Amino acid sequence: MGENIGAAARGMLNFGLSDLRIVAPRDGWPNQAAIDMSSGALDKITPRIFNSLQEAVADLHFVIATTARPRDMVKPVFTPAGAIAETNTRHDQKTGFVFGPERAGLTNDDVALCHAILTIPVNPDFWSLNLSSSVLLVAYEWLKSRDQTPELMTPTGNSEAVTHDALEAFLNRLESELQSGGFFKSPDLKPTMVRNIRSMFTRGNLTDQEVRTFHGMITALIANKSKVD
Amino acid sequence: MGENIGAAARGMLNFGLSDLRIVAPRDGWPNQAAIDMSSGALDKITPRIFNSLQEAVADLHFVIATTARPRDMVKPVFTPAGAIAETNTRHDQKTGFVFGPERAGLTNDDVALCHAILTIPVNPDFWSLNLSSSVLLVAYEWLKSRDQTPELMTPTGNSEAVTHDALEAFLNRLESELQSGGFFKSPDLKPTMVRNIRSMFTRGNLTDQEVRTFHGMITALIANKSKVD
Repeated sequence: MGENIGAAARGMLNFGLSDLRIVAPRDGWPNQAAIDMSSGALDKITPRIFNSLQEAVADLHFVIATTARPRDMVKPVFTPAGAIAETNTRHDQKTGFVFGPERAGLTNDDVALCHAILTIPVNPDFWSLNLSSSVLLVAYEWLKSRDQTPELMTPTGNSEAVTHDALEAFLNRLESELQSGGFFKSPDLKPTMVRNIRSMFTRGNLTDQEVRTFHGMITALIANKSKVD
Repeated sequence: MGENIGAAARGMLNFGLSDLRIVAPRDGWPNQAAIDMSSGALDKITPRIFNSLQEAVADLHFVIATTARPRDMVKPVFTPAGAIAETNTRHDQKTGFVFGPERAGLTNDDVALCHAILTIPVNPDFWSLNLSSSVLLVAYEWLKSRDQTPELMTPTGNSEAVTHDALEAFLNRLESELQSGGFFKSPDLKPTMVRNIRSMFTRGNLTDQEVRTFHGMITALIANKSKVD
């Protein structure tokens, strides 16, 4: 189906892959439905069309068949991350991933042609993945294995994380203003309350700018109180 | 767009998620295009419809906004795997992921409502992900973080990996038959050739059944030779 080819091309290019090979497309090629569905990916990718899987993988060294069901063949079975890790060890080899048509999947003869199997772990009660989803997940794992983005970062824009010193000055001012305002009813409980307030502010990973904003808020709240008085 | 909602529902359920909440769907609800595109997922998932994002996340404790572009806000930014790892640390908390409409994405006010940001690392030259692709990748990482499937396994069906002893017996027979057939032209090179043949067979992680098949092949080839003689 053209739509599946277009969506697959888009998913590949989203994660930096562009060597798309199509075996015997049902509706011929080029295919307007595929181009429409690709959101521009097929303007940048020129797929190669083959008559058979054998021809499509002829120049490759290592070929992985994507299948949902186990086949009765003794072949390594990888998860997506495992398959990408395997291909990454094959430095000088051209490797390829084979995906079957949406409903039927790959035939046993197709799978026999390949060196290994990739099976995506899914919900056993709703396991049928869209063809382009399978392609997307493999491409995603491919880029992920090369990408240096940390799993967590907190960009602080033009500001910087507040220094301990500046936060301390703010907390001391807050404590003193709260004292003046009669916040600490019981002197016995004050040390605990101060520690708890301190936890609220240290946990937030505040920036320098944010602590200045808190200073401004205190100033505004004090001003309000003066007016009421 | 109904199609996007249906595809998102399918991707969620493929990886075991079913709490779908939709804010102000453009074409109302229920939506036949969504149902058609979901390949049955919307028979098993009953989405809840809300008028605003605020209402949709009201009962949640931790909410992550998915955005393609950095926003000028000081918030933690996670990768998909990082975001799932973070939510997994929040044992007693209900967490949610927010996805914006296909073209426009989330507004800054939507993002401000959330505790953290999720940005999927993509090809910077073709970064626009389909809405349902973003949903799919988050659901995939969610299941992956819970799934015990090893990255590589080699199921051997009714057979078992060959024992060293049985492989040795085969290699000895092979060597002996090759000797009879005049395969080792030079006695000097024979030890190296034997070692190389041994590498070919040990590398293959053969099963017991496969070694028996090799025995059968040798027997057949010897029989052929006899006939020719």
